[in-house]
Amino acid sequence: MPATSDKDFQIPVGAFQSIVGAEFVFNDTETISAFAKDETEDLFFAPDLVIKPKTTAEIAAIMKVCNSHKIPVTPRGAGTGLSGGALPRFGGIVLSTERLNSIIEIDAQNLQVTTEPGVITEVLQNAVKEKGLFYPPDPSSRGSCFIGGNIAENSGGPKAVKYGVVKDYVLNLELVLPTGEVIWTGANVLKNSTGYNLTQLIVGSEGTLGIVTKIVLKLLPYPKHELLMLAPFKDLEKAGAAVSEIFRAGITPSAMELVEIDALKIVSRYVDSAAVKIEDDVAAHLIIEVDGNHEETLMQEMEKITRVLEAFDCGEVLFADDERQKAELWKLRRRVAEAVKADGYTIEEDTVVPRAKLPALIKAVKDLGKQYNFHAVCYGHAGDGNLHIRIKKPGCIYSLNNPEVVPALRALFETVKNLGGTISGEHGIGLVQKEYMDIVFDPAAIQLMKGIKQVFDPNNILNPGKIF
Amino acid sequence: MPATSDKDFQIPVGAFQSIVGAEFVFNDTETISAFAKDETEDLFFAPDLVIKPKTTAEIAAIMKVCNSHKIPVTPRGAGTGLSGGALPRFGGIVLSTERLNSIIEIDAQNLQVTTEPGVITEVLQNAVKEKGLFYPPDPSSRGSCFIGGNIAENSGGPKAVKYGVVKDYVLNLELVLPTGEVIWTGANVLKNSTGYNLTQLIVGSEGTLGIVTKIVLKLLPYPKHELLMLAPFKDLEKAGAAVSEIFRAGITPSAMELVEIDALKIVSRYVDSAAVKIEDDVAAHLIIEVDGNHEETLMQEMEKITRVLEAFDCGEVLFADDERQKAELWKLRRRVAEAVKADGYTIEEDTVVPRAKLPALIKAVKDLGKQYNFHAVCYGHAGDGNLHIRIKKPGCIYSLNNPEVVPALRALFETVKNLGGTISGEHGIGLVQKEYMDIVFDPAAIQLMKGIKQVFDPNNILNPGKIF
Repeated sequence: MPATSDKDFQIPVGAFQSIVGAEFVFNDTETISAFAKDETEDLFFAPDLVIKPKTTAEIAAIMKVCNSHKIPVTPRGAGTGLSGGALPRFGGIVLSTERLNSIIEIDAQNLQVTTEPGVITEVLQNAVKEKGLFYPPDPSSRGSCFIGGNIAENSGGPKAVKYGVVKDYVLNLELVLPTGEVIWTGANVLKNSTGYNLTQLIVGSEGTLGIVTKIVLKLLPYPKHELLMLAPFKDLEKAGAAVSEIFRAGITPSAMELVEIDALKIVSRYVDSAAVKIEDDVAAHLIIEVDGNHEETLMQEMEKITRVLEAFDCGEVLFADDERQKAELWKLRRRVAEAVKADGYTIEEDTVVPRAKLPALIKAVKDLGKQYNFHAVCYGHAGDGNLHIRIKKPGCIYSLNNPEVVPALRALFETVKNLGGTISGEHGIGLVQKEYMDIVFDPAAIQLMKGIKQVFDPNNILNPGKIF
Repeated sequence: MPATSDKDFQIPVGAFQSIVGAEFVFNDTETISAFAKDETEDLFFAPDLVIKPKTTAEIAAIMKVCNSHKIPVTPRGAGTGLSGGALPRFGGIVLSTERLNSIIEIDAQNLQVTTEPGVITEVLQNAVKEKGLFYPPDPSSRGSCFIGGNIAENSGGPKAVKYGVVKDYVLNLELVLPTGEVIWTGANVLKNSTGYNLTQLIVGSEGTLGIVTKIVLKLLPYPKHELLMLAPFKDLEKAGAAVSEIFRAGITPSAMELVEIDALKIVSRYVDSAAVKIEDDVAAHLIIEVDGNHEETLMQEMEKITRVLEAFDCGEVLFADDERQKAELWKLRRRVAEAVKADGYTIEEDTVVPRAKLPALIKAVKDLGKQYNFHAVCYGHAGDGNLHIRIKKPGCIYSLNNPEVVPALRALFETVKNLGGTISGEHGIGLVQKEYMDIVFDPAAIQLMKGIKQVFDPNNILNPGKIF
């Protein structure tokens, strides 16, 4: 019983019902609208059908049907993405991985975990932590996002500055291809020079090349101690400059976050917290964490950092004394995006530059704001040069290709490119940044990417309309 | 003036002479034979022509000519490869990168270096070390190999156990495509979710997808101290078991090497060293290094490691007291391969398994030796589960597809696969392992790789005959 559609495909609902069971195939209005949006503001694309399979075999069977019927399929994790990657741009099927939610094996001997994609990142982190193990990548949404979505976007988070991003932990992936074939991309090993690195090609490919159904991740021993400090700066650019100086002093903090004062005011109000005193002459704060197994060494590092900061007009440093205070500071940082969004700032940009170019980027953002008449707040992972920027322009509502916004974004991204950076550090391109890919890639490079897409997905059914 | 050839291509020598200058185009017997072999024993494939360009533009021009004439091109670094990757299987041109030998910029502010591919790895390491910076990947051949070849093979080395392999340091690559177009694969940033990860696709692609002409690498602050110990074991499998227990104790050594006693005897004789006392009841040694900025912390880690080792029948541990002693130990380790090769052991296999499977792999190697009547020596990067194996079989000389060797290797690689591992950890597939790719990859995965090759190199002119 094909569903009718004004599109050039028909959906054999019955076929899917017999693959996964009728109770896991949805076309009711409520489900359809829930799966028509994610955390990317103001985007809405309704699927024709939502399917919630349980196994690799079911997903393979679904893909075979979709491939032969040329039905668009958009894989979806928890829907916390910020680039519209999980939205069905051309309708068709949204394939939710929420029922593939088992941690298959924690291998404490080899410091590895094998998991399904629908496990919440923080659940996974806690499960391995119970065995003394550490999976560092921790996007702000870790309490709700899925590990599978993290693979799709090559997510980062505060710990990336010391521990790297998702790609640095993925050893091997089970992947259902758009044609319904199932492969493993690599092996469960720390070193691999065997053929092309399909594993790394899939990480960050935003669900356009295959559907990840099993994930083998490298783990580390959990560090025993961490120390946290908060440092206020009168000058935003000096805060940015201090960041790179800390690394030059030979210290690699486990987090190095920047929050501009405007963002801090908004989030403090939003979560009703007085954890950070807001002083009039402060422009930004750095949140700096060090971790390791030797507390005394960490104390020494903190002292060394403090001495570095003094050269940059740093105000009085606050050391988080206990777990409660640390948690409070992290809560503020993690909820900044949500707070400024609620305050009317929209479009979270995800620019990234070489770390020492951060002051130049911050200055450029402010200058562009004056030129294009918007107000911007900056926050993000300063240690990686990964700066999130949200802008507010009175009377302007964000939409794709809004002519009021596009010229300002193009100017911003061109600046980023000229600084040696690129347009997405951890969110992905998805729908919202694809118009800007020409700024950072040569046409020949984009042609190669399109060619790779064609190799994996000859009928262009898997997450079509994204990235390019 | 095309050179004559019995192959189905003709080489317009004059065109290449006008691109790079006649003095950098070679077809004399001496040059041709020098470029017909590398460090992979007993393989010999003569090129028709050797070209030594100086710039990206020259390489792009060469590739345009070769692409239109369908001339095979084999890029070559220093020729230290162990899988035959730089050998011109079908003749044609060997393109040497030896004149692209400048370190372009050491960016101490951003902890990055931009270099050409023809720089010797150790030269690059020393140049950044002078600025207090650290490029960790250090293959045994680092005194002669080129950084470009390291990119091609995704090389590792002893430090990989703590610091990762080449892929973990490559941020961005300038690449000449087989069609002669020039692209940059990424950006000079630590986090990147912008399009498919072409950078990581190129790393380890063995010069089959493009010719790397500029390389941007991430650097670290140079660690201030390192401590080294040598631990003898009576039982080879127990040595392997001790390895994974050290990591489980929460310590990540900066090197964790295994050398079997037979290999140690051979290398001690070969380099005329008495640095390690060779005792009758010892089966293997572990070389263990820790590094960091705090010497006292390192001493504590060494003590902790010693306590772990005691549970595995470890003999008396030797601590290297000074730089001379450290250098002597490392010299022994680094020259093992050369020594056992000179002793008649041939084919260095490059197996890699999850670290805790190392004892099982070692046992399997010995059992296979009995079954197939060869003697094997094992050594390598035990901390990564990366075990090099060389075999000696009286009267048997290695050649590709030698029927005396193939069944033993297939059995070995099947064991490796069953242990969760793969057939190359750091050498690449090249010519010598390509017959075994079916053991570790599904046909669909190999098809994808071939499809990617086709996208980059539609005429299959770049390093043809490798990997697949």
